[in-house]
Amino acid sequence: TQTLNVRSGTSTNDIKGIDAQEFPPLPVPDMDGAVQLSVVDFREMIHQVSFAASTDEARPVLMGVLMVIEGDQITMAAADGFRLSVRKATFASPAPVPLNVIIPARALNELARIAGDGEGSISMAVQTGRGQIIFRVKDVELVSQLIDGTFPDYQQIIPRSYKSRTLVSTTALLKACKQAEIFAREGSNVARLDIKAAEGEMKPSELEISATSEETGKNETIVEATVDGSGVLIAFNVKYLREALEVIKTPNVALETSASNSPGVVRPVGEDDFLHVIMPMHLG
Amino acid sequence: TQTLNVRSGTSTNDIKGIDAQEFPPLPVPDMDGAVQLSVVDFREMIHQVSFAASTDEARPVLMGVLMVIEGDQITMAAADGFRLSVRKATFASPAPVPLNVIIPARALNELARIAGDGEGSISMAVQTGRGQIIFRVKDVELVSQLIDGTFPDYQQIIPRSYKSRTLVSTTALLKACKQAEIFAREGSNVARLDIKAAEGEMKPSELEISATSEETGKNETIVEATVDGSGVLIAFNVKYLREALEVIKTPNVALETSASNSPGVVRPVGEDDFLHVIMPMHLG
Repeated sequence: TQTLNVRSGTSTNDIKGIDAQEFPPLPVPDMDGAVQLSVVDFREMIHQVSFAASTDEARPVLMGVLMVIEGDQITMAAADGFRLSVRKATFASPAPVPLNVIIPARALNELARIAGDGEGSISMAVQTGRGQIIFRVKDVELVSQLIDGTFPDYQQIIPRSYKSRTLVSTTALLKACKQAEIFAREGSNVARLDIKAAEGEMKPSELEISATSEETGKNETIVEATVDGSGVLIAFNVKYLREALEVIKTPNVALETSASNSPGVVRPVGEDDFLHVIMPMHLG
Repeated sequence: TQTLNVRSGTSTNDIKGIDAQEFPPLPVPDMDGAVQLSVVDFREMIHQVSFAASTDEARPVLMGVLMVIEGDQITMAAADGFRLSVRKATFASPAPVPLNVIIPARALNELARIAGDGEGSISMAVQTGRGQIIFRVKDVELVSQLIDGTFPDYQQIIPRSYKSRTLVSTTALLKACKQAEIFAREGSNVARLDIKAAEGEMKPSELEISATSEETGKNETIVEATVDGSGVLIAFNVKYLREALEVIKTPNVALETSASNSPGVVRPVGEDDFLHVIMPMHLG
């Protein structure tokens, strides 16, 4: 072992170290075929997707975010078995090479932190043969191992149709979710959504969200809604619903449902590039 | 059970509660024979003593601070089997009744927090027959159960004599302890103190404090000292030594030692009202 000797006044310190040779080799970045992404856009994509990745080490593939680049299209997706977050974007010009990789969600979160809220762009290149991806932003290079494996076919999870489409104010539903969560968190985070179809042209329809706790009590909030289709009674993990609403910037949000045992889809109204699927819970 | 119904806009909440009758009865304070202590003095006494109390629930008596009042003398003591902190003070006029109680250290810390650094005084009275003590400071009353049991005869732990008395600057020794602690904390917090007797009238004596860690390295600091008596090599838990020094306000501190297997005594120089005993550790 090696030792750094530090003396100051009457104090002597021997601090042990290891040989610099033993530091992991710094990769020589190969930025051929690098893709350019704007910091602002990429941060938002990471923000809208990575929270849905799993933290369960039993299924490593789900701890990553799938990134697919084809032509001028980039898609990022993450799922943990209970929810799925998908975000698409379009490049100004087609990417030089197609890409299909799984990046650890932790590395992307770290990248978003490093990138800050500055302007500028992030260069991204896969290090072929090494199973690594490299990001370069300003003076920083971040290298991450890619996750080896096959990401589940998430397209299959997205419902093709719906029986009920509920339009609500994003902030009103988010606030109602936060209130319900106070009562739901003691149990299994279950909140019931009672979506009531409009009974007449002139009568506003509504969404009633409620949560019950044996210890704390119960909560019930009515959110004004525009319901297109039939009513439905469905239960969700309110934490998942809240987290999805928190990354949606549009003033209104659409909740697409079919039955109490079918997944619900959350979409920002007026932006087709994001969608979030949440599995329903059993109604108590 | 009882329920509080809170409505606001479209949100309805039922918050469960229990009957006010089930709240623990508020004691009717009996301030007969109350003792008055100045906030500033009492806070310092608590500060200098309570950190030495044990946190081990196996010996409840040691989780408390012994308070003895006799005439115009008040003494507080706490010990955890490895160290002992004793602080005395004198009242302006004799207390109306003698007192000998064990107060939970947590309650005293809470009292010190509530009392703030304000002026004024704290009234303290034991609620005879209920095994409680009540403190009144400004608008707040704090009631604590007393700890039932016999506090160990701490006088026996205090060494009656010493072979070596080392005078050092409190801040210099505290700084050296903090540096040693960085290296000592990985092991069992052992720091060695090599107290070197003066070799001649004109040669300054010194105290060498050192700590070694297999992982981190080692540290050695020399503190200028005036050693009266023979030299000694002794090991202490450096955390305990640091904590004792942190509550000493005088510029100089005296360390009284006899042998490497006998307890050491830390005393502020020029103030006889505080002393701290620390058991030695095995020299590695």
